[in-house]
Amino acid sequence: MGTLQHQIASESSANGGNHKGISEQVKSKAGGKEKFLEVYSKLKSDLLLDSEAFRYTDEYRAWVEKMLDYNVPGGKLNRGMSVLDSLRLLKSGVEIPDEEVFEASALGWCIEWLQAYYLVLDDIMDNSVTRRGQACWFRNPKVGLIAVNDGIILRAHITRILKSHFRNKPYYTDLLDLFNEVDYQTASGQLLDLITAPVGEVDLSKYTEETYLRIVEFKTAYYSFYLPVACALLMVGEEDQQTFKSAKEILVQMGTYFQVQDDFLDCFGDPEVIGKIGTDIEDTKCSWLIVQALQRASPKQRQRLKDNYGKADHSMVLEVKEVYNELELQRVYLEYEQESYSKLVSMIEKQESQALQAVLKSFLAKIYKRHK
Amino acid sequence: MGTLQHQIASESSANGGNHKGISEQVKSKAGGKEKFLEVYSKLKSDLLLDSEAFRYTDEYRAWVEKMLDYNVPGGKLNRGMSVLDSLRLLKSGVEIPDEEVFEASALGWCIEWLQAYYLVLDDIMDNSVTRRGQACWFRNPKVGLIAVNDGIILRAHITRILKSHFRNKPYYTDLLDLFNEVDYQTASGQLLDLITAPVGEVDLSKYTEETYLRIVEFKTAYYSFYLPVACALLMVGEEDQQTFKSAKEILVQMGTYFQVQDDFLDCFGDPEVIGKIGTDIEDTKCSWLIVQALQRASPKQRQRLKDNYGKADHSMVLEVKEVYNELELQRVYLEYEQESYSKLVSMIEKQESQALQAVLKSFLAKIYKRHK
Repeated sequence: MGTLQHQIASESSANGGNHKGISEQVKSKAGGKEKFLEVYSKLKSDLLLDSEAFRYTDEYRAWVEKMLDYNVPGGKLNRGMSVLDSLRLLKSGVEIPDEEVFEASALGWCIEWLQAYYLVLDDIMDNSVTRRGQACWFRNPKVGLIAVNDGIILRAHITRILKSHFRNKPYYTDLLDLFNEVDYQTASGQLLDLITAPVGEVDLSKYTEETYLRIVEFKTAYYSFYLPVACALLMVGEEDQQTFKSAKEILVQMGTYFQVQDDFLDCFGDPEVIGKIGTDIEDTKCSWLIVQALQRASPKQRQRLKDNYGKADHSMVLEVKEVYNELELQRVYLEYEQESYSKLVSMIEKQESQALQAVLKSFLAKIYKRHK
Repeated sequence: MGTLQHQIASESSANGGNHKGISEQVKSKAGGKEKFLEVYSKLKSDLLLDSEAFRYTDEYRAWVEKMLDYNVPGGKLNRGMSVLDSLRLLKSGVEIPDEEVFEASALGWCIEWLQAYYLVLDDIMDNSVTRRGQACWFRNPKVGLIAVNDGIILRAHITRILKSHFRNKPYYTDLLDLFNEVDYQTASGQLLDLITAPVGEVDLSKYTEETYLRIVEFKTAYYSFYLPVACALLMVGEEDQQTFKSAKEILVQMGTYFQVQDDFLDCFGDPEVIGKIGTDIEDTKCSWLIVQALQRASPKQRQRLKDNYGKADHSMVLEVKEVYNELELQRVYLEYEQESYSKLVSMIEKQESQALQAVLKSFLAKIYKRHK
């Protein structure tokens, strides 16, 4: 095990082991979250009070404020807060002026806005019921399909935030290109997903590993893992395209590993810990588990999967889980986790920049062996 | 009447008077349209064959190609073709190299892509049935709400076209800002419209002139009238913000006039000429006519409007038209048209740049006294 692996492992155990360490971390994390949320309030009031919004109506501003509060700040905020975390690591040791803290937070919020825009529209397309413990936005009686346009407004807010705070930065154009590129990749990943598993249709033969990896890469990994780091790299003036390329490659791998964990926890995680009861089996999701199961199943087991996957009936869900257990998917997952981890560590260690290594290491430490 | 008014009037009558003139114009216009459509094919195949799309699947590319052909090139293409028209007038007399013709056409297609993205999403929100003589995209059995994501992809294509053809232009950043600004305004206009007239609800007291003008300005005028001219101005290297501001002011007025014409023709135009049977009354649209009628109606007439507006029943539609006739809305319209025209001409004549005057004049000539 290399030094880096050792470092990550000890950070990871510190998270769960040292009591004083935890409470301090929680406090500083909570303080960080509070400050981060202050930036949200500032960005929101800018959007509602700027010269453009001023030309709309009170009714418009009230609608937009409600829509923002309902959809933007209610998530875990990991993606958003990781821009500032990454910036700190890239500037190791050097204190960051308040203005830059604000800017990194604003970019973080742009990612949260992006996430909100995807979730509002995904929920419509998936006909979902709840999101983050409340009714999906479009389910609100006065909203309905106006939510489609709200998605567009959320997307447009990102460009307004970027313009009002970054227009004079040397990296402004690169920032626009970055958000545009990631948005295209995410929408493409979403389309790949939608045509692979249309709502109400089941065709398990389409659930191959290749397809799974492609969807995860485009639909999730770019915006969740690459985008925050790329924002931080632009802020420190990084211009070497190779650095962006390597970071992208590693973070996309990490994003994939993250999604596999998500899929695993949906079925095998503790609902008390993950905070929800997984329904991937009922929802016919193209999950990592069903992909692995189909690769390993005997003809008989495959038939049982076919007969029982995607049904709301509890006993049918248990039948699918029974096949998963027969195929020892928990063991398969632990092997996958170990292998991914080693591969990521060796990719990270190949990076020339120690600062970039620190950023990537910190991302990996946050997700390695996570239970929620 | 000033010289300019005279010029416009004679161009306008030439459109309808000189037989040789017409057939030549039609031929050259058809040739222009053919060339413009060739650029579409090139842009489409670039999008489907570039290094990014290459990483998706055959199924993905087939879907996107079908979606583009269904939604992008089937309109009148007036907005798109007016970028090159404007560029020619701005460069009066100087021959435009093929490369620039291509670029102006590509920007024109970005506007058509923008329009397609709005229409695909609007049709979902309005629960519409047909568009451009075919079923709305989301009505296709295999599409459904995947159309929401297709809208997002159409939006993302614009940024890809801009990046691949304009990344090295000195005006690239301004171009991104321009499209972002116009997109925000259009989405805001759409929201103003949606909360003023929610699908299935009728509240005529909301249909005021102020509200009408605000919706039209944001929802239609910026992207249909200002955007093509602003693109052409960026191409000729215009940097004076005052020029953009004046052009915007005049073109937004012209866009408003255009929408009033549209609303008028929906009710009083010849269905044979406008190519459709208007249904604004049945659809409870916040049309210029109902706004004018409500301003002028006696309490009794207002009640008749309330009772009959927004109903599919043919005799109720006729009752609304009867009130319109009692209030002489055709005369009111002609007065509005004359007044708008004079106001626009005087605004145009105040512009310093003769080339810009020519562009604005050409836009006005295209719509003045139109019957379709």
